[in-house]
Amino acid sequence: MPTVSRKGTAMPSSPIRKLVPFAEEAERAGKKVFYLNIGQPDIHTPEVAQQAIKQADIPVLAYSHSAGFASLRSGLSKYYNGKNLPVSSEEIIVTTGGSEALLFTFGSAMDEGDEVIIPEPFYANYNGFATASGVNVVPVEANIENGFALPPVSAFESAITPKTKGILICNPGNPTGYLYSKEELEQLRDIVLKHDLFLIADEVYREFTYDGAEHYSVLGMNGLEEHAIVVDSFSKRYSMCGARIGCLVSKNKSFMATAMKFAQARLSPPTYAQIASEAALKTPQSYFDDVNAEYVERRNILVDGLNSIDGVFCPKPKGAFYAVASFPVKSAEHFAEWLLSEFDHNGKTLMMAPAAGFYAKPELGRQQARLAYVLNVEDLKECIEIVRHALQVYPGTIK
Amino acid sequence: MPTVSRKGTAMPSSPIRKLVPFAEEAERAGKKVFYLNIGQPDIHTPEVAQQAIKQADIPVLAYSHSAGFASLRSGLSKYYNGKNLPVSSEEIIVTTGGSEALLFTFGSAMDEGDEVIIPEPFYANYNGFATASGVNVVPVEANIENGFALPPVSAFESAITPKTKGILICNPGNPTGYLYSKEELEQLRDIVLKHDLFLIADEVYREFTYDGAEHYSVLGMNGLEEHAIVVDSFSKRYSMCGARIGCLVSKNKSFMATAMKFAQARLSPPTYAQIASEAALKTPQSYFDDVNAEYVERRNILVDGLNSIDGVFCPKPKGAFYAVASFPVKSAEHFAEWLLSEFDHNGKTLMMAPAAGFYAKPELGRQQARLAYVLNVEDLKECIEIVRHALQVYPGTIK
Repeated sequence: MPTVSRKGTAMPSSPIRKLVPFAEEAERAGKKVFYLNIGQPDIHTPEVAQQAIKQADIPVLAYSHSAGFASLRSGLSKYYNGKNLPVSSEEIIVTTGGSEALLFTFGSAMDEGDEVIIPEPFYANYNGFATASGVNVVPVEANIENGFALPPVSAFESAITPKTKGILICNPGNPTGYLYSKEELEQLRDIVLKHDLFLIADEVYREFTYDGAEHYSVLGMNGLEEHAIVVDSFSKRYSMCGARIGCLVSKNKSFMATAMKFAQARLSPPTYAQIASEAALKTPQSYFDDVNAEYVERRNILVDGLNSIDGVFCPKPKGAFYAVASFPVKSAEHFAEWLLSEFDHNGKTLMMAPAAGFYAKPELGRQQARLAYVLNVEDLKECIEIVRHALQVYPGTIK
Repeated sequence: MPTVSRKGTAMPSSPIRKLVPFAEEAERAGKKVFYLNIGQPDIHTPEVAQQAIKQADIPVLAYSHSAGFASLRSGLSKYYNGKNLPVSSEEIIVTTGGSEALLFTFGSAMDEGDEVIIPEPFYANYNGFATASGVNVVPVEANIENGFALPPVSAFESAITPKTKGILICNPGNPTGYLYSKEELEQLRDIVLKHDLFLIADEVYREFTYDGAEHYSVLGMNGLEEHAIVVDSFSKRYSMCGARIGCLVSKNKSFMATAMKFAQARLSPPTYAQIASEAALKTPQSYFDDVNAEYVERRNILVDGLNSIDGVFCPKPKGAFYAVASFPVKSAEHFAEWLLSEFDHNGKTLMMAPAAGFYAKPELGRQQARLAYVLNVEDLKECIEIVRHALQVYPGTIK
């Protein structure tokens, strides 16, 4: 029998997937399961996007331009300009989700054996795309104690080798929700300029910032023109994860010309989804105001609730819709499994994502889990009570 | 300035793209340009698919399963069973076009430096996906004299090295239109079994076979269960290239589990397009009968017409909607460029794809071009007259 690739063998499985059979078993056993484990919001997709698809008349569903509709790129350029980010249509390639933008980035910027530095914990699929591209992830550790702020410059400096091609950040962060300050981004700028690296910023949660905090994009930073690469997506911003439309943005012409070759090989991004996405750009500001107000309320209930439980610590994030909490248990993974398989509170339980899957170093994050506040306020209140009661009876609770 | 990857530098540009500026210039000069260069059919997408999208009500456009909708996989399983191909839902991963199925195949089956053998001329993007995956393409030469039949077994045997992981065929072929016989496929079976290789069959043109010729799928061949990988797509079959839905099919559990890790990393295939594709599976047989009758007529007009021109030779293909013709010129690429930039017949000209871009060996196919018969019969008749008149005045015509 022919064997699969070493690379394929090394590809990580989804860290959440291990728990799925336990969740399915819990549902079969009649338990109500609250899913806090994935970043699939319950927020409605903007009406303009839904209507655009119903009204589209496409007798021949043809390939689009490999960089995406010109009109969509132009709309995206206006979107960035509206945020004081000087981005032209030519500096944008529409991709099949932020996922493909990441894949094009690894392929265009890095070869087999090259290294990318990523503050950990980080979005687990970075590891998947890096492995698929033969690239090694070099983690630098962020800490829950300071809410996962940027690790010190010295930690980046120690991690840089001749193989380093870039630093990848997620801002605001998945799984941490941490929003980098202007000063932190300036530190990163100095490092990438000093060592001639790419600074890759996954900014798909850009619109989700709270408490009046401002989002700073690497696209707006002087001096980074040839270094900054932004991975962006419609998925979270407009709650249209299933569309699979994102984009890659950079002013580095050589990088973009290379990424375009990857884009041409796969022909084009999905047409229906581009239509919905272009329409979504017309979503009124009130939609975002409502959504953000909702997320702030959810975050407060989830984070304040978790912190009200003995032994639980959860920094309050200023962005995205995730929080990483530390629990008074030896293994958050075992606790998460136990919640599904052994526990219920009034017939209800919950699923969370053990944070170990978001760390590259296996010894880190063992007591932590990521909770996505993608459920309504009443459900989240129930979730807090589930965790509170669970920790009272879980055999592994550290008192 | 940070530099792009060696891999990215090696990624081929589209062989057609070089001519695009000349076509644009021809249009600006007021010429009517017939586009025979790309495989974008003018055939209408089935009405059931168009309607499904209009009627879909999706308030939250969420991620789908990473392997695609269960209902779509089940529908695809029935489609294969209807062709006497024993494929279950579990043996299918829905992908973002056949393109992504190819990318998952290279990633799951091959590592950097591994080799895949492909009869040339071949679909140019195979080279792109191979390069992106660090895989080396080893071509074996097919000949226009016998209509691009399978090269002899000895040619494959000579090309096999310890690095060889698989043989990739396109059946029926792009760019050749050649439909492999049962005997040819059995030769391939014997080779892959003897050397323990994967046999990867791109069967996206399966429905387009003419003159009563039957399509044989590697999925139906005994003994190939662990070796056969099929790349499939809705793009051509239902004229919905812009949907970007395809699938990967294999009975090799280890291969599919590995491909599934690539699928999970990119989250899910596009939801709207999956809805349209699932509906497309209900397309009545009369649609295909009409389409194939149309293609047969087009093929006959194009191929017979080309062969009626002095010095032109074009084998008559039994499948797909492409033909490769040889012209009495030193460089078909120069001739194609000249057709756009220097020539018109009654204000009209055409664009064809120089075949050199479909060969790996640079010395091959220099006199050949691929013509896609994706235009209506009247246009194709005009194209024949354009070529006839052009060759009479082209300075490079070999008399």
